[in-house]
Amino acid sequence: MVPKDSYLVGLIGSGIGPSLSPALHEREADRQGLRYVYRLIDIDTLGVPPEAVGDLVRAARQLGFDGLNITHPCKQQVIRHLDALAPQAEALGAVNTVVFEEDGRAVGHNTDVTGFAASFARGLPDAPLERVVQLGAGGAGAAVAHAMLTLGAERVTVVDAMPERAAALADSLNRHFGEGRALAATPGRLAELLARADGLVHATPTGMAAHPGLPFPAALLHPGLWVAEVVYRPLETELLGTARALGCATLDGGGMAVFQAADAFRLFTGREPDSARMLADIAELAGAVPAPK
Amino acid sequence: MVPKDSYLVGLIGSGIGPSLSPALHEREADRQGLRYVYRLIDIDTLGVPPEAVGDLVRAARQLGFDGLNITHPCKQQVIRHLDALAPQAEALGAVNTVVFEEDGRAVGHNTDVTGFAASFARGLPDAPLERVVQLGAGGAGAAVAHAMLTLGAERVTVVDAMPERAAALADSLNRHFGEGRALAATPGRLAELLARADGLVHATPTGMAAHPGLPFPAALLHPGLWVAEVVYRPLETELLGTARALGCATLDGGGMAVFQAADAFRLFTGREPDSARMLADIAELAGAVPAPK
Repeated sequence: MVPKDSYLVGLIGSGIGPSLSPALHEREADRQGLRYVYRLIDIDTLGVPPEAVGDLVRAARQLGFDGLNITHPCKQQVIRHLDALAPQAEALGAVNTVVFEEDGRAVGHNTDVTGFAASFARGLPDAPLERVVQLGAGGAGAAVAHAMLTLGAERVTVVDAMPERAAALADSLNRHFGEGRALAATPGRLAELLARADGLVHATPTGMAAHPGLPFPAALLHPGLWVAEVVYRPLETELLGTARALGCATLDGGGMAVFQAADAFRLFTGREPDSARMLADIAELAGAVPAPK
Repeated sequence: MVPKDSYLVGLIGSGIGPSLSPALHEREADRQGLRYVYRLIDIDTLGVPPEAVGDLVRAARQLGFDGLNITHPCKQQVIRHLDALAPQAEALGAVNTVVFEEDGRAVGHNTDVTGFAASFARGLPDAPLERVVQLGAGGAGAAVAHAMLTLGAERVTVVDAMPERAAALADSLNRHFGEGRALAATPGRLAELLARADGLVHATPTGMAAHPGLPFPAALLHPGLWVAEVVYRPLETELLGTARALGCATLDGGGMAVFQAADAFRLFTGREPDSARMLADIAELAGAVPAPK
């Protein structure tokens, strides 16, 4: 009997009970014949503060974990506890994946950036990228803005209801990608910005099951825009449905969720995941049509 | 796709690299269609003292382990960090299995005791138990002496090269099973003790690959004795071969190794392991005949 290669990974964050990561990782591992356990380590359930992420990462290494995913509110906190950062994590100042290397080092990566980039390149390969408007400058927004500029967007205008957050993200993007690549704007300017834009990246929680609706009036959309969504539960948000009805090319948030998981899987195992099969998984797990009861 | 039940367990101890526990547990779990990872947590590799077992147990619970096996030198140390003890662990003052219950409690068990008892009951079911001589009063010796008295041995005489260790074990056995059930003796009395004994339990390291040979002169054996061995690497020790050649009924150490693992598997998963299949596994993993290179 040949022993199966064995992997132990987990996700550290707050309120992560509904995460699809265990299912995405374990299903792909099963298809590859790997022994693979993905554990949820919820700081709310444990009753520990975000600062505890350092102790949890150290303990995970001691107890034989191969790596960890990290999510809100620990993606920045974790950095001081790592030995090295991959370039995209260093540029973003946020880590969503930690790999415990054979040599004992804990190395931080950001597969939100690489995952959104892979999803966009696959789903909207011919999208014009001269003028991109991005709504939302939180953690997910920072990652996808980095991805858009990495993909070659000429200019990304970041819009957020918190002006200082939009400005801080634009400053950071300009430092890393060159002056003038990013601008900040308030939601009041969204109409004029979208009128002249090639595409819209939506990175706020609006459209999630708990926050239904549109993030702005439907009248601001027009057929000349492509629309990329970060929300993936549900896969079909009101924004995507409205945009598609107008004739916009669209990209749902499932691709980012899958490719960030696929990139983490590759980092943890050194094996190539089958992203097509993982996209079918997420369609089943987070599908627009709820499963019959 | 129905998710598989998922289990994460490990072994804490010193010098445990060659342990067969991961293979025994994971093979049985695979046959039952469970997702099951068994990790080795070696305090030597980690560079931490035995006292660190408390921190490791707490961390394992936080990180989603379902339970732990505990071995030398942590079986006593771990007790102060647990919420409750099963009777056999309490009586012995040693824990080799910790279960993290649904209610959050960490409960200590000793499946060395239950495992040796199960192996003996299966392998030597009709053995007379009036006068039992046991050689070796270390950790394994304490567990198997408890098992023998639990099985109904009338009197166990504990022989050890360290007289105070034999005396302490005999005292402890008499406290738990009633005065006069256990005696201590020095190796110099082994000839007269074995001459009048029904059976011998061997619980020293002699006969292991690193300590080959017989634990006492072959002339002390006689056909009226049964001989039960704790050593299981190799399964066929010189003691067992010599005793079998004389016509003694014998029991190798593989059964204890299997049944302690099977009992821990049952505690971790609530599922009944197939001990016959696990016995075949250990014959392959620790067989007397080395596998061809």
